[in-house]
Amino acid sequence: MAVLPLKAIERLLRKAGAKRVSKGASVEFAKYLGEFAGEIASEAAELAKHSGRQTVTEQDVLMVRKIRRR
Amino acid sequence: MAVLPLKAIERLLRKAGAKRVSKGASVEFAKYLGEFAGEIASEAAELAKHSGRQTVTEQDVLMVRKIRRR
Repeated sequence: MAVLPLKAIERLLRKAGAKRVSKGASVEFAKYLGEFAGEIASEAAELAKHSGRQTVTEQDVLMVRKIRRR
Repeated sequence: MAVLPLKAIERLLRKAGAKRVSKGASVEFAKYLGEFAGEIASEAAELAKHSGRQTVTEQDVLMVRKIRRR
């Protein structure tokens, strides 16, 4: 899943202190971010089910974050 | 940093199996994703500097991922 356009990722890396950014760095970053987002989404959806709810709430996302410790 | 619009996050959560998604869940998810993206960007930029390079490359992003083990 392409979470962010490559130009936005390049901007983010520059804002973080990068002087230059290779195309491959942005592509790999997008892949990493997309996979991360997919994992968090799956875990939050599973937590809601686990709790007998049909609605994913803020607390599910916070609990995923807590369990992952970051 | 708002990495993704809330509507896109809601779609992602639904695709991951959520029946319903609260507004707060999408807001918290966006925050989490934005902070994660910022951390990865900083670490990749630091790794490039650490390696005496001006350009952040694909290898920097892959190394961040490897060190984080996910």
